[in-house]
Amino acid sequence: MNRIYNFSAGPSTLPESVLQKAGEQILNYEGSGMSVMEMSHRSKVFLEIFESTKAKFIKALNIPDTHEVLFLQTGATGQFSMVPLNLMKQGGFAEYCVTGNFSTLAMKEAKKYGEIRLACDSSDKNHTYIPTGFQGDGDASYLYYCSNNTIYGTQWNWVPEGSSALVCDMSSDILSRPVDVSKYGLIFAGAQKNMAPAGLTMVIVKKSLLGNAHPLTPVMMDYKIMADKDSMYNTPPCWCIYMLGLTLDWLESQGGVSQMNEMTRQRADRLYDTLGNSSLFTAPVEEGSRSAMNVVFRTASAELDDKFVKEATAAGFANLKGHRNVGGMRASIYNAFPSAGVDALIDFVKKFELDNK
Amino acid sequence: MNRIYNFSAGPSTLPESVLQKAGEQILNYEGSGMSVMEMSHRSKVFLEIFESTKAKFIKALNIPDTHEVLFLQTGATGQFSMVPLNLMKQGGFAEYCVTGNFSTLAMKEAKKYGEIRLACDSSDKNHTYIPTGFQGDGDASYLYYCSNNTIYGTQWNWVPEGSSALVCDMSSDILSRPVDVSKYGLIFAGAQKNMAPAGLTMVIVKKSLLGNAHPLTPVMMDYKIMADKDSMYNTPPCWCIYMLGLTLDWLESQGGVSQMNEMTRQRADRLYDTLGNSSLFTAPVEEGSRSAMNVVFRTASAELDDKFVKEATAAGFANLKGHRNVGGMRASIYNAFPSAGVDALIDFVKKFELDNK
Repeated sequence: MNRIYNFSAGPSTLPESVLQKAGEQILNYEGSGMSVMEMSHRSKVFLEIFESTKAKFIKALNIPDTHEVLFLQTGATGQFSMVPLNLMKQGGFAEYCVTGNFSTLAMKEAKKYGEIRLACDSSDKNHTYIPTGFQGDGDASYLYYCSNNTIYGTQWNWVPEGSSALVCDMSSDILSRPVDVSKYGLIFAGAQKNMAPAGLTMVIVKKSLLGNAHPLTPVMMDYKIMADKDSMYNTPPCWCIYMLGLTLDWLESQGGVSQMNEMTRQRADRLYDTLGNSSLFTAPVEEGSRSAMNVVFRTASAELDDKFVKEATAAGFANLKGHRNVGGMRASIYNAFPSAGVDALIDFVKKFELDNK
Repeated sequence: MNRIYNFSAGPSTLPESVLQKAGEQILNYEGSGMSVMEMSHRSKVFLEIFESTKAKFIKALNIPDTHEVLFLQTGATGQFSMVPLNLMKQGGFAEYCVTGNFSTLAMKEAKKYGEIRLACDSSDKNHTYIPTGFQGDGDASYLYYCSNNTIYGTQWNWVPEGSSALVCDMSSDILSRPVDVSKYGLIFAGAQKNMAPAGLTMVIVKKSLLGNAHPLTPVMMDYKIMADKDSMYNTPPCWCIYMLGLTLDWLESQGGVSQMNEMTRQRADRLYDTLGNSSLFTAPVEEGSRSAMNVVFRTASAELDDKFVKEATAAGFANLKGHRNVGGMRASIYNAFPSAGVDALIDFVKKFELDNK
């Protein structure tokens, strides 16, 4: 059986050539006589994988020397705690932009560690837009936002100014567009959407912010300790790091982040245009806030949505059901999702409309 | 090129048949049309992997219903914080058995969260033995020990009594011998020695101990939250969980934990006997405390040790250099290490002795 079009919001599709290469090397990595899964993390052969992956990541996002790259675990949710534990000043406050599920959870977690103020909130319209026209308070310890909201299908197209430290959860759009890292105090991203299998969390942190962790910070959650040990305080998730290296090779071969930006935006727009021209389907997210990664759409009835998902699944389009908070459908089309699959979905959408008018 | 004998202390050798199967399924798991690395953790196909892996783990260690099994991240070091954050009673104290590097680090970390008392300490003889003849203080929040000390090559052959909650780091000998789980409040183990690739930490916790975490406990470090969400509060390390399932299938096919115990003890003893009969090599660990997982040995000089390691490496025996705290050599021979490799090492040891008398 062939591989299917997997529209999962995460973990999600990896480049087929990356999986093929990983399969070829699984018993014996480059003549080492062992799998990457069996290597001591302190061995020469693994350290070469680690260093080259780090270098490729720095190159892909053009990360300046002012920032450190960390390979961590426990996903974005781990960062919901680590950010305030490490960056909240004693007696200070932090600002949160609430534009979806994960920023809401991040804010809730941060309240354990200090005062939180709302910088913006899109819940008045069920998170169908990204607020604009505000800036951060320079007295806050940091300003926090999530650049792409997987569940609601929104994506920030601007970067807030004015904060003393800008913190961004880029879990669902990292490596899909250029980022001016110098504007950020901290960027983090779970690997399982655009980078590697679940179990790795990438952090890019400004070095000048390190060293002020809360005294009760667990050792594995102290950015400074992780930075001082180059993410090797203990055994890192070696296989995920190796897979990220392979994905970064693939990314480079495809033209890098700027080409990803063009390619993913163009194909998402083709899908949004199809939905815009339809009398059966609608895309609830406001123009200008529409995600290139997660395209949310629906028909006029939940029954017809169910029918669409069922028939699409039978036709080889998996995981198109929308999140329960939103309903309808969601097509997650991250970097590695094949463009042919987006075109095939567009054809399927058109055919479904003809059949159900 | 063939696979080599990899004596790494961790990450370490996995069963070759497990790697083969993982390689065969890497592009398309059982007709799903996708890799396990690409599956939504909430999809039916992955939930089946998750549930069956959990069931196999419970069966392998005969875990009673009184205990919950958790699939976590950040290794044993993460547990060094989680144990006191979750189990230390307010104003209470905990007891630690210091028998090596990792129990020392665990105790150091726990001091952030409460009073720590020493239950025993083998540092007087550079951790070459496991103390005996003491019992836990029933008033302590818990008694902590590490069942196998990878660096020093010692292994506990008794279980301390008297504590209100017994906590054990079994990272380097879990699944290698039967355990009476009912005696323990909490057992944890990083996966990368006897179970799966690095990035997964297994926890077995008595349900009655849950729900008393410190108010500042990060959400990902609260055992109760992880138990309530069956380890799916966020995306778990899916690939490592899948690999653990394959390893548990292999374990079962080999006769399970009791057979592992017999097999690993017998072959370690063959190696210890060879060293005992040698006039060139010595094993520093006291009899009765010798690990079946990590066999530490040396010659009379650092130069000869270096020569041994160099010649062994050239002969296809990788990672035999001892830890810098101990020097000499260390052969880590976990469950999945091929017995033929232990026999080959024994022959090599004998030949080296003849050549260097």
